[in-house]
Amino acid sequence: ARRGYPEAVYCPGKSPDQAAVIAAAVRERPDVTTLFTRATAAHAAAVLGELPEAHHDTTAGLLAWPPTPPLPTGGPVLVVAAGTSDLPVAREALLTARYLGRAADLIVDVGVAGLQRILGQLPALRAAHAVVVAAGMDGALPSVVAGLVSAPVVAVPTSVGYGAAFGGLAPLLAMLNSCAPGVAVVNIDNGYGAGHLAAQITAVRS
Amino acid sequence: ARRGYPEAVYCPGKSPDQAAVIAAAVRERPDVTTLFTRATAAHAAAVLGELPEAHHDTTAGLLAWPPTPPLPTGGPVLVVAAGTSDLPVAREALLTARYLGRAADLIVDVGVAGLQRILGQLPALRAAHAVVVAAGMDGALPSVVAGLVSAPVVAVPTSVGYGAAFGGLAPLLAMLNSCAPGVAVVNIDNGYGAGHLAAQITAVRS
Amino acid sequence: ARRGYPEAVYCPGKSPDQAAVIAAAVRERPDVTTLFTRATAAHAAAVLGELPEAHHDTTAGLLAWPPTPPLPTGGPVLVVAAGTSDLPVAREALLTARYLGRAADLIVDVGVAGLQRILGQLPALRAAHAVVVAAGMDGALPSVVAGLVSAPVVAVPTSVGYGAAFGGLAPLLAMLNSCAPGVAVVNIDNGYGAGHLAAQITAVRS
Amino acid sequence: ARRGYPEAVYCPGKSPDQAAVIAAAVRERPDVTTLFTRATAAHAAAVLGELPEAHHDTTAGLLAWPPTPPLPTGGPVLVVAAGTSDLPVAREALLTARYLGRAADLIVDVGVAGLQRILGQLPALRAAHAVVVAAGMDGALPSVVAGLVSAPVVAVPTSVGYGAAFGGLAPLLAMLNSCAPGVAVVNIDNGYGAGHLAAQITAVRS
Amino acid sequence: ARRGYPEAVYCPGKSPDQAAVIAAAVRERPDVTTLFTRATAAHAAAVLGELPEAHHDTTAGLLAWPPTPPLPTGGPVLVVAAGTSDLPVAREALLTARYLGRAADLIVDVGVAGLQRILGQLPALRAAHAVVVAAGMDGALPSVVAGLVSAPVVAVPTSVGYGAAFGGLAPLLAMLNSCAPGVAVVNIDNGYGAGHLAAQITAVRS
Amino acid sequence: ARRGYPEAVYCPGKSPDQAAVIAAAVRERPDVTTLFTRATAAHAAAVLGELPEAHHDTTAGLLAWPPTPPLPTGGPVLVVAAGTSDLPVAREALLTARYLGRAADLIVDVGVAGLQRILGQLPALRAAHAVVVAAGMDGALPSVVAGLVSAPVVAVPTSVGYGAAFGGLAPLLAMLNSCAPGVAVVNIDNGYGAGHLAAQITAVRS
Amino acid sequence: ARRGYPEAVYCPGKSPDQAAVIAAAVRERPDVTTLFTRATAAHAAAVLGELPEAHHDTTAGLLAWPPTPPLPTGGPVLVVAAGTSDLPVAREALLTARYLGRAADLIVDVGVAGLQRILGQLPALRAAHAVVVAAGMDGALPSVVAGLVSAPVVAVPTSVGYGAAFGGLAPLLAMLNSCAPGVAVVNIDNGYGAGHLAAQITAVRS
Amino acid sequence: ARRGYPEAVYCPGKSPDQAAVIAAAVRERPDVTTLFTRATAAHAAAVLGELPEAHHDTTAGLLAWPPTPPLPTGGPVLVVAAGTSDLPVAREALLTARYLGRAADLIVDVGVAGLQRILGQLPALRAAHAVVVAAGMDGALPSVVAGLVSAPVVAVPTSVGYGAAFGGLAPLLAMLNSCAPGVAVVNIDNGYGAGHLAAQITAVRS
Ligand SMILES: Nc1ncnc2c1ncn2[C@@H]1O[C@H](COP(=O)(O)O)[C@@H](O)[C@H]1O
Ligand SMILES: Nc1ncnc2c1ncn2[C@@H]1O[C@H](COP(=O)(O)O)[C@@H](O)[C@H]1O
Ligand SMILES: Nc1ncnc2c1ncn2[C@@H]1O[C@H](COP(=O)(O)O)[C@@H](O)[C@H]1O
Ligand SMILES: Nc1ncnc2c1ncn2[C@@H]1O[C@H](COP(=O)(O)O)[C@@H](O)[C@H]1O
Ligand SMILES: [Mg+2]
Ligand SMILES: [Mg+2]
Ligand SMILES: [Mg+2]
Ligand SMILES: [Mg+2]
Ligand SMILES: [Mg+2]
Ligand SMILES: [Mg+2]
Ligand SMILES: [Mg+2]
Ligand SMILES: [Mg+2]
Repeated sequence: ARRGYPEAVYCPGKSPDQAAVIAAAVRERPDVTTLFTRATAAHAAAVLGELPEAHHDTTAGLLAWPPTPPLPTGGPVLVVAAGTSDLPVAREALLTARYLGRAADLIVDVGVAGLQRILGQLPALRAAHAVVVAAGMDGALPSVVAGLVSAPVVAVPTSVGYGAAFGGLAPLLAMLNSCAPGVAVVNIDNGYGAGHLAAQITAVRS
Repeated sequence: ARRGYPEAVYCPGKSPDQAAVIAAAVRERPDVTTLFTRATAAHAAAVLGELPEAHHDTTAGLLAWPPTPPLPTGGPVLVVAAGTSDLPVAREALLTARYLGRAADLIVDVGVAGLQRILGQLPALRAAHAVVVAAGMDGALPSVVAGLVSAPVVAVPTSVGYGAAFGGLAPLLAMLNSCAPGVAVVNIDNGYGAGHLAAQITAVRS
Repeated sequence: ARRGYPEAVYCPGKSPDQAAVIAAAVRERPDVTTLFTRATAAHAAAVLGELPEAHHDTTAGLLAWPPTPPLPTGGPVLVVAAGTSDLPVAREALLTARYLGRAADLIVDVGVAGLQRILGQLPALRAAHAVVVAAGMDGALPSVVAGLVSAPVVAVPTSVGYGAAFGGLAPLLAMLNSCAPGVAVVNIDNGYGAGHLAAQITAVRS
Repeated sequence: ARRGYPEAVYCPGKSPDQAAVIAAAVRERPDVTTLFTRATAAHAAAVLGELPEAHHDTTAGLLAWPPTPPLPTGGPVLVVAAGTSDLPVAREALLTARYLGRAADLIVDVGVAGLQRILGQLPALRAAHAVVVAAGMDGALPSVVAGLVSAPVVAVPTSVGYGAAFGGLAPLLAMLNSCAPGVAVVNIDNGYGAGHLAAQITAVRS
Repeated sequence: ARRGYPEAVYCPGKSPDQAAVIAAAVRERPDVTTLFTRATAAHAAAVLGELPEAHHDTTAGLLAWPPTPPLPTGGPVLVVAAGTSDLPVAREALLTARYLGRAADLIVDVGVAGLQRILGQLPALRAAHAVVVAAGMDGALPSVVAGLVSAPVVAVPTSVGYGAAFGGLAPLLAMLNSCAPGVAVVNIDNGYGAGHLAAQITAVRS
Repeated sequence: ARRGYPEAVYCPGKSPDQAAVIAAAVRERPDVTTLFTRATAAHAAAVLGELPEAHHDTTAGLLAWPPTPPLPTGGPVLVVAAGTSDLPVAREALLTARYLGRAADLIVDVGVAGLQRILGQLPALRAAHAVVVAAGMDGALPSVVAGLVSAPVVAVPTSVGYGAAFGGLAPLLAMLNSCAPGVAVVNIDNGYGAGHLAAQITAVRS
Repeated sequence: ARRGYPEAVYCPGKSPDQAAVIAAAVRERPDVTTLFTRATAAHAAAVLGELPEAHHDTTAGLLAWPPTPPLPTGGPVLVVAAGTSDLPVAREALLTARYLGRAADLIVDVGVAGLQRILGQLPALRAAHAVVVAAGMDGALPSVVAGLVSAPVVAVPTSVGYGAAFGGLAPLLAMLNSCAPGVAVVNIDNGYGAGHLAAQITAVRS
Repeated sequence: ARRGYPEAVYCPGKSPDQAAVIAAAVRERPDVTTLFTRATAAHAAAVLGELPEAHHDTTAGLLAWPPTPPLPTGGPVLVVAAGTSDLPVAREALLTARYLGRAADLIVDVGVAGLQRILGQLPALRAAHAVVVAAGMDGALPSVVAGLVSAPVVAVPTSVGYGAAFGGLAPLLAMLNSCAPGVAVVNIDNGYGAGHLAAQITAVRS
């Protein structure tokens, strides 16, 4: 755990057996929140074998232990997903923020092709102290959201799409070139990083 | 002139002298509308030396002869520019559409960072039979516009911006990946092509 | 359904079960045409379990419900495929145009390596009010077609090819740089978008 | 001014005359802080002709009016530059943060090739509520800084370098892939955006 | 001179003085044909100061000495340019082929947007033993020509165009992916290499 | 069959069933040489079911019918492969040249890391009227070969390698920038195109 | 074996059978050290069938025969891996250096996000005559190490990471742009090349 | 000066005045060798105003003070340039190695298009303890040299060339993919880094 933040175990490149070994060690440290990210079904089974009570979110591919997030402190975080295909990334951000100790909510399917959907969420958007926006394809949603709120927007491009989306390059470039200031960009599909950054932005300041 | 459309002379790579020679030939064909595009001041002076009455738009770098566009036929075209920096490209599209015989209007500075600006133009947007949208940086405006209108949107990415805009690559990719259907993309900074396509889309059908 | 257009369900990233749930909901709305695009055999089986009478085109990976397209209105659309490998994309465009209410036909295997083939189709090409051209590799066919017709050409690059085709990048760039005006480009393999755009271009104008 | 933030006028693509016109209008609005960014000597002369008391930072190419920043509120911002070549970008961030109302300081020449330099600044780094890090070439500094502090790090890649730096692409990719969480990336050379984001992160929360 | 072929001096990166020194040395070797390629006006003046009778083609930026090409041997070469902007590259190819000892002709402005132009040249195309095709933008012409002739086609992409032409990348990729076999690709703008290759292909075989 | 050349059937994207249908049609045309390229084991079985006597080269993934190549005419072709990993591409070139009617030989494992190997083949290299060179990774071999022979070199980059080979981009760029003139480049892994071009270059001239 | 160095057999692209044939030949040459690199389990089984006593490192995918490395000569090599995911590449470098005759050690999990880890290894770092550094993602570690030691640093980028890591491009560019001199870069994931180079750098000089 | 190595002042991005200030400070430290790299004529004049006796190499754009390099220690370095256009980079490497205390020599114009030139230098190549190879275009020379010598090869790609050389990307990729082991790559045009690395490789080992 870096400086009071939870420990995160990135599962890709680790075998289920290796994940189980880590999970067994985690069991010995009940005071440290630990997240297993990008876990496949096989990783999850291995972790749950050691930590049967861990929380498992299959959409995000995330396991958390202890299963209950800490009581929220700091400012509220809102996670916004352009489409349902962005949900795995958005939920990874949502849960990361929660297990880092923030009150966090999720709004889905508010892409810019139907503006009334995002405009209908103005009160929720403006109540948040940081807004995470997950979007693929044209990556247009963070620019629109950043124009509607004063809080920082954490933009996470997703690899949703095909062809000239080039695995998330298109929304990544769009977000880096947002015509509205106040957009913080993280790596493609990096819901963990987005949620972590949002939790840091909204932390109680020492 | 291709099949009833005006002739267009692309000035880059031609010397002012070469432009003057072409302009002199144009003078002999009063029945054919001719556009000189991407003309520098030197090109313009050379063309005006031969065709003193030609119409010259310095923002677009475009000269037209004869100076008066044909009487409009077909459906109306609306050109929309995200920012004032997109104006040269937008005006090139506007004038091309007009000299191809369309009624065409221009709206500027309606980027998505301030949604009320584009939403305030809904009646004009919905009256058009084709909408040209010029935008650089995040290239988000065409997706928003295509979600607001039923007519085809011609999206022209501009090289406005710096860094990861990569000379217009960022908005180009965004537009190709528009989350709203109905977006026709042309080359970066290709206002001429955008106006031409819009005029073809809105032509009286034979 | 956006503003009178059919609803489209993009299957990749959805499980067959999720597709079945959507199909069940669709069954309750007999008045709205719905397309399931990029459906695998498993998606198709799931959809047909709920909507046994849906039309299923295995080449395009498309299912439509209700199965019969609306009576055609507006202008005719022609879809042209450079080679037989472009057929899945071309048929996706063809069916989309038809289910959006256009009369639409398909011509295959008219690549520019044998010009007599495309030249032999001149009457059909010139009768269309919009021509969709699907091509991979060198992406040369839209330039040739746009030089032969006055109607707009919707160019859809395909990922057919290998090596320096770079997954469709080569024909995409070629189409964006067409030496003939009047070419509207959509995303690589985006037959749905091409057919949708062609249907908008040829719609009865309000 | 967006929602209480200063107005920023981006000078590239505007003529000195156009800058002067804007400056004259600014003179009429003494209550709105206005920044002119990326101003050349000619832009600066034009602006100063209208606003002789404006503050002019020649390294950043930035003019501000009124010349005195507002009294600081919110949390402190620290701007860190890897080398002296990153100074124009770093100062743009510094001044933007100050004119948005933050206490902001600058530390220069603390690149990772001599770790003792950045390690010698630990107290200053840990006192900040947001750290802006400007670096070109390998873009390694934000990863190191993010490992040393709990506050969010705003990473701004610079176009300093040559060859395989590819105009800032190398540090941009490095920053997006930071091995430490808590790194918010903005566009290459976008000191304005970095300072703005840092000011939003450290704002007094409503 | 490599194995019986002329010597070529590539002028970029050489000062006019350095070019003059080489020209003076060339004067001492009357038996070796020498080409100075990509010569600016200053390079040309320096070379002509030493070799006043050298042949100078200002469009190609090429000087040749001795001024008269050798008597043609081998098979005939035809150089074809899509547009007049491709002329510098096309003439570099033409002259290189001639000074390497081939009968060579040039046809200009036969781009695929007006097929009747290239179709009108069928007898000339089919008489050649190698056809060099210079084209920028969509790079479509070599595919069309290779479909019309049995002889090898040497395709040289040019940097003509803007935006998504990416300095000749678009036609380069198109040519590498030609849907017709028989296309030999050389570097962007490499008229010298194209003419050299065509001369080798058509050489009298030992 | 294009203008006297064999017919080639590109198998990827075709099902074994589709290949069998084509093979059955081929059986009816004993006078036309037909090549099935990039055939998997399943494609091959399907083709051999219809054409049991077809020649099948498993390394190249190529089937030919009738099985015996025509009697050689024109000049000899030499195919050279840098390493054994380049063999599939090299054999595709070799067989294509043979079935187009050329005498063709193959030399393998003569990469530039051991110059004595390629230098030991000088007589064979200089006897050929066209040399096909297949190489991946650094793509250095065509430059070396082109410096040793006067005949044209057809360079075919292969996707052999990993990392910064980027699927053959590295040798493709190296070959396009050969420091020796006389190098004709074809697409990555395009052994068929290389062999076809070499056969055209060495054809009996009409 | 090149000039006294071991022979290396690169397994990808070879079938297990082909690997077995090579292994059988190796058995006849007991005096030549041979490495099989990037061996899958199937390759390994085939090699061990012929050379049962060969050393097999499953993490690196490397087999060596004879199994015992030569007695070390020259200067010591240190291999450093940023994270455990870099271990396959790091071990490939380690073993290559050892089988080329160097004393070589390995330190893992010393990424720059926790500087105390690498700073805690200063004595080991400074004792080495060459340091191999394997890192993915931001590729920041070689710059930090090169600033701490006077010996050459061999930097090997790994394909660890996702999204904008682009298969190792991000750390590759970072390493090429190291702000500290003394960094020698090899291909992505090229542990073999890194170990080989380090062994050459530290060889006893003739 | 890093750990006993000379200080290097990178002039681009510094004004001549700033260079003069640094030079004045250098004058006070006669014991530290200082290099000014990439100096324009204006930079050089400013430096020579303060350090009139400094050594100035106009080809490399390098100034050194004190003017005489230290007496050579360690092993000999050989710098090899493929063509005369690579000379500025090659001389920067040569002088850097010399001022870091190595005996260093330079061989020019030994590109692989004429193998006898590099083969004629075998004794010199094999006498060196490190060989720096500067090459642009196809970047083939380092592979050939690494196959001829046992010492490490430091490969520096140059931006010489045009079109698909993409500013040195082509030789950079070729060098990273060298088919011969023992190649250490540095940034495009980085003669300073290449000479520095070669000097470290050949240093007297502590
Ligand atoms: N989904 C994720 N995306 C990006 N980084 C992650 C993710 N999960 C964990 N990490 C980072 O990776 C580190 C753990 O890596 P490892 O030690 O290989 O498990 C953590 O400290 C996090 O900073
Ligand atoms: N240096 C800068 N870099 C990036 N964006 C900027 C910069 N300066 C101003 N902007 C943005 O550009 C907008 C003004 O653009 P304009 O109306 O063209 O002057 C402002 O609202 C800012 O969001
Ligand atoms: N325009 C050109 N484009 C490409 N290569 C050229 C050109 N002109 C000359 N060359 C090649 O460059 C070599 C001469 O280079 P240099 O010795 O630097 O003048 C010749 O042998 C040619 O192979
Ligand atoms: N020509 C060069 N190419 C690359 N790096 C250089 C060059 N010259 C100097 N450097 C590096 O840049 C640092 C000096 O940068 P600066 O302090 O901005 O002058 C030195 O320590 C060198 O590591
Ligand atoms: Mg905002
Ligand atoms: Mg719409
Ligand atoms: Mg047309
Ligand atoms: Mg941190
Ligand atoms: Mg042909
Ligand atoms: Mg040759
Ligand atoms: Mg060091
Ligand atoms: Mg060697």
